[in-house]
Amino acid sequence: MKIELAESYGFCFGVKRAIKIAEENKNSSTYGPLIHNSKEIARLEQDYQVGLTDNHTIFKEGEKAIVRTHGIQKHELAELKQNNVDVVDATCPYVTKPQEIAQEMSEAGYSVVIFGDEAHPEIKGVKSYATHGALVVTTSKELEYIKLREKVALIAQTTRKVEDYMEVANYLIPRHKEVRVFNTICNATFENQEAVLNISKMADIMLVIGGKNSSNTKQLFSISHDNCENSYHIEDENDLDYSWFKDKIFCGISAGASTPDWIIQNVIDALQKNIK
Amino acid sequence: MKIELAESYGFCFGVKRAIKIAEENKNSSTYGPLIHNSKEIARLEQDYQVGLTDNHTIFKEGEKAIVRTHGIQKHELAELKQNNVDVVDATCPYVTKPQEIAQEMSEAGYSVVIFGDEAHPEIKGVKSYATHGALVVTTSKELEYIKLREKVALIAQTTRKVEDYMEVANYLIPRHKEVRVFNTICNATFENQEAVLNISKMADIMLVIGGKNSSNTKQLFSISHDNCENSYHIEDENDLDYSWFKDKIFCGISAGASTPDWIIQNVIDALQKNIK
Repeated sequence: MKIELAESYGFCFGVKRAIKIAEENKNSSTYGPLIHNSKEIARLEQDYQVGLTDNHTIFKEGEKAIVRTHGIQKHELAELKQNNVDVVDATCPYVTKPQEIAQEMSEAGYSVVIFGDEAHPEIKGVKSYATHGALVVTTSKELEYIKLREKVALIAQTTRKVEDYMEVANYLIPRHKEVRVFNTICNATFENQEAVLNISKMADIMLVIGGKNSSNTKQLFSISHDNCENSYHIEDENDLDYSWFKDKIFCGISAGASTPDWIIQNVIDALQKNIK
Repeated sequence: MKIELAESYGFCFGVKRAIKIAEENKNSSTYGPLIHNSKEIARLEQDYQVGLTDNHTIFKEGEKAIVRTHGIQKHELAELKQNNVDVVDATCPYVTKPQEIAQEMSEAGYSVVIFGDEAHPEIKGVKSYATHGALVVTTSKELEYIKLREKVALIAQTTRKVEDYMEVANYLIPRHKEVRVFNTICNATFENQEAVLNISKMADIMLVIGGKNSSNTKQLFSISHDNCENSYHIEDENDLDYSWFKDKIFCGISAGASTPDWIIQNVIDALQKNIK
């Protein structure tokens, strides 16, 4: 069986940057998982003693708190600073940007609509910056009975599919005097999505490697599955079921932006060892 | 044969307003045709002595110059004022708005893209307000080899089809950091378009009445023709060919925003007289 990696996959700029920050800040703690990959977080804890807490109020004066790549809510950051916690910001700059846009647009009198997952920490963070509130939706249907202002600002979760974003934009534009569409989907997301699209059209089995709660991995899997029915979302080599590969001749591989190369390599090694 | 008018048709707010202004300013001249309907312009000349010139430099100090509904170019207006001409502005307020947007966005550093007909006076006017220039397109294909800035402002000719506008918006949004989409297509246009869509689906012959150079009439005709093959764009009853109506049972009628009611009534009278 031929095994091939997508032309673009895995770690993005923001994740690489966050891991470097964590490695440089031994004996600290992140508030919330630094990235959506538990294996890499376990590595940081073991090799660099970077802990993890899901409560920002437990940080004491002078203690180091690393802010996760997805960012945190505005009031949480304010509280950390108020408590004189030593805040080390590993928020991806591509997430800081929509936070700033949400605040600016809300204060300029626009209705702010965020296209994304309300429960995802990135979106909780971005929404918290909209001074006068924001509406979070995943499809235009959720907008049908909502009264928005004449001027609407539209912001996307960085890891969403652009086609789905356009569906919401296409609903809003004919209905409002002005729709300010901010293309906040990050380039790495675009590149990984385009690459998985291309390889999944050729492969007869696809593996998409990444954390089960990783939004961008789920989007990659969705694109892959649209083009190759035999697509599997796995976290690492332990999730492999070798019966999937019976009679398959071309296995394509992609990985989410928070999936480290060493996990991808483990998967490839396992395949090469177990599949002819 | 049943004859039925579309639910919304004919004169829009801006045209009614312009005609009222012209009637109130006897013995004046318009620079360019006040509206795109030569019959109505002939009526204004005959009944109100409102003349027409296509050269703005011939107006003398103190003379009255009526600015047409479609607006004029920024430098032309400045020259008229500089020459102390008494300018009476009949520009439709829905056209003044995109002029203001073009200027504001251009000065704020956006690339200004105007969706419309480069040769149409409205668009010549709107474009002239973009201090640092603007690009006029009718399809996204014209944008393919154009380098625009990261921030783009998109403005539409007031009389265009919204579906065609969305095509350009959909091209721009994924390719730019921010696309500010101004919905400058006027409501009367929307309403007349929706009404002609509905009636043309039921009729077996459609008449769309309006000036041959009227942009909004051409759009209405295009929608009508998409749904009813036997659609005809006529200026008045003299353009009727009664052989069109052989074996037809339902004639739908729509009219452009610059078509006066008396022309529509003449058409209906002629049909009722000549078709059973």
